[in-house]
Amino acid sequence: MTTLPTALPATPPASPRIPAAPTAPHVLDRCRALVDPALREAVGRLHPWLGEMAAYSFGWCEVGGAPVAGTGGKGVRQALAVLGAEAAGAPARTGVPAAVAVELVHAFSLVHDDIMDADVTRRRRPTVWKAYGTGPAVLAGDALFALAVETLAAAPGGPGAVVPLSAALREVMRGQADDLLFAERPWTGPDRVRPAEYRAMAEGKTGALLGCAAALGARLAGAPPSTVAALDRAGRQLGVAFQIVDDVLGIWGDPAVTGKPVHGDLRERKKTLPVLLALDAPTPAARRLAALLAAGGDAEEAAELVERAGGRRAALAEAGRSVAAVERALGGTALREPAVGGLRSLLGFLVDREL
Amino acid sequence: MTTLPTALPATPPASPRIPAAPTAPHVLDRCRALVDPALREAVGRLHPWLGEMAAYSFGWCEVGGAPVAGTGGKGVRQALAVLGAEAAGAPARTGVPAAVAVELVHAFSLVHDDIMDADVTRRRRPTVWKAYGTGPAVLAGDALFALAVETLAAAPGGPGAVVPLSAALREVMRGQADDLLFAERPWTGPDRVRPAEYRAMAEGKTGALLGCAAALGARLAGAPPSTVAALDRAGRQLGVAFQIVDDVLGIWGDPAVTGKPVHGDLRERKKTLPVLLALDAPTPAARRLAALLAAGGDAEEAAELVERAGGRRAALAEAGRSVAAVERALGGTALREPAVGGLRSLLGFLVDREL
Repeated sequence: MTTLPTALPATPPASPRIPAAPTAPHVLDRCRALVDPALREAVGRLHPWLGEMAAYSFGWCEVGGAPVAGTGGKGVRQALAVLGAEAAGAPARTGVPAAVAVELVHAFSLVHDDIMDADVTRRRRPTVWKAYGTGPAVLAGDALFALAVETLAAAPGGPGAVVPLSAALREVMRGQADDLLFAERPWTGPDRVRPAEYRAMAEGKTGALLGCAAALGARLAGAPPSTVAALDRAGRQLGVAFQIVDDVLGIWGDPAVTGKPVHGDLRERKKTLPVLLALDAPTPAARRLAALLAAGGDAEEAAELVERAGGRRAALAEAGRSVAAVERALGGTALREPAVGGLRSLLGFLVDREL
Repeated sequence: MTTLPTALPATPPASPRIPAAPTAPHVLDRCRALVDPALREAVGRLHPWLGEMAAYSFGWCEVGGAPVAGTGGKGVRQALAVLGAEAAGAPARTGVPAAVAVELVHAFSLVHDDIMDADVTRRRRPTVWKAYGTGPAVLAGDALFALAVETLAAAPGGPGAVVPLSAALREVMRGQADDLLFAERPWTGPDRVRPAEYRAMAEGKTGALLGCAAALGARLAGAPPSTVAALDRAGRQLGVAFQIVDDVLGIWGDPAVTGKPVHGDLRERKKTLPVLLALDAPTPAARRLAALLAAGGDAEEAAELVERAGGRRAALAEAGRSVAAVERALGGTALREPAVGGLRSLLGFLVDREL
């Protein structure tokens, strides 16, 4: 076992034979190949109609059930669960029930979030509610949720893991609730959304499930509480960093890469971190931004003012602090290679996107 | 311990000092008083906005959070859980975490079902989605679901009870899916809904959670598998009987009592058991009913034809068979008084309504 250094850049490892860290695509492919059969077996236990909607949400089939080639999402959560088990010294398969559970929970939350946010496309296809109707999509999400809990609870060591999973879910829903409520609050004044509230929302909505995924893998591996807690912290901060990078891309990302319109989040008047940090700056650009947003002004001009008020830079600095927190969490406890290398590769893959 | 007789009317008890069976209102009140503080404590752990929607769904407050007097629903599921624990020889409080979990699950399913069925009122108030919006109602239901799982999993003996709860939920969702799909199927011909399919739907949608409630209470009491299974069977058949009686009331019930319009379920063209059984009868009235329904005809005339084709009588006979199955389940195993008397009182209360 190797205790890794707590700061970047990595100091030379204590062990002479640490294998090279696997690349993120390799990690994701390996974990997908391991988890996919169990995930499909679980979905196969659903009512056929609900199973079709679930399979559609995973990108496995078209409306009507015709199979399609394709992998759906990146599968980050299942990879975190498998790597969590391996980092705790267990074989990869130990993390599979946790991986299935977190992928099912993630699918459930996407299906329901798309209803809440009235989003009509996801991964360039109609969302489940758009394709099947709102009521059926509510039910399909519920069934995915129940299946996730059942899968985890039925696994060896799983019953004790249900409380952390459901507690994480309560946090996810708390974050989603705050996100929905943020939309109704003003840009400025005493009721404005503070950056600290945004961070708490992002940690709940995105971080809690990523942390839970890695921690559940370690739990099923019988890891001590300190290891479970370190992986939970690492996953949470990874989620926060990912969310902030997503916010930056939502304003300045290349539409050809993000699949979203230029300045999309500003057009939709989303309260994202770069904007909130810009509004908090004591600068003329910040004051002009506040006036522009209050008047419902042009998105391109708003993006320019967010940048001039330092919102983009400050947001990326925040993301950097979260990345450093991931590194501290991964380095501060006894975790096994090459799984930790895999976790670091995922971190880079998720955060170091086209900025 | 007293093994009760397997058939009605009850033969004299073997023990000389069996207390008189409590009445259903007394049972419901006692269980509510016991469970209510724990239920409110659990709901208090939610995000405040989600907690308000949850409290509204329980009938504890108005939109905005102002408290109201009133008890909301009957609380049958919490009573089944408490009586299940007592019937297995444990004190009532042993069943409380199961009672809280099943009430939370029931609330979740009502909030989501009202979205799926586009119902605008429940218990003479706007439904949650109507009062708060569809997206928030989806989220409030999800949060109630997660809270239910967390509450049960955190209870003494609870982790082992999560699999049966989530398996029951999968059945509930299977039943709800079939119910939604029934609406799209024809009244007659090879694709018609058969009475046996209806029974399976009702057992899933209504019976599974009632059975689970009673069984979970016994599980937390450490009851042997035969006791748990008997209570599960009793609750399931109680659910089926209740659903059939509800169907009969949905056509012939007094609007002043049911709060629903006369012949309401026929106006809404619901595929309920009396209609399906009537259509299956080889009589001229059944053929005229089929033609009338295909033509979208008058609800009063349809009710008359269902009755003449024997649908009402056959449905009530089915309900009677389910009641007998409840009695067999309660009588065929070692269960304690006065809890079994309480279960019988509930059975009578739920099934023997204004017919």
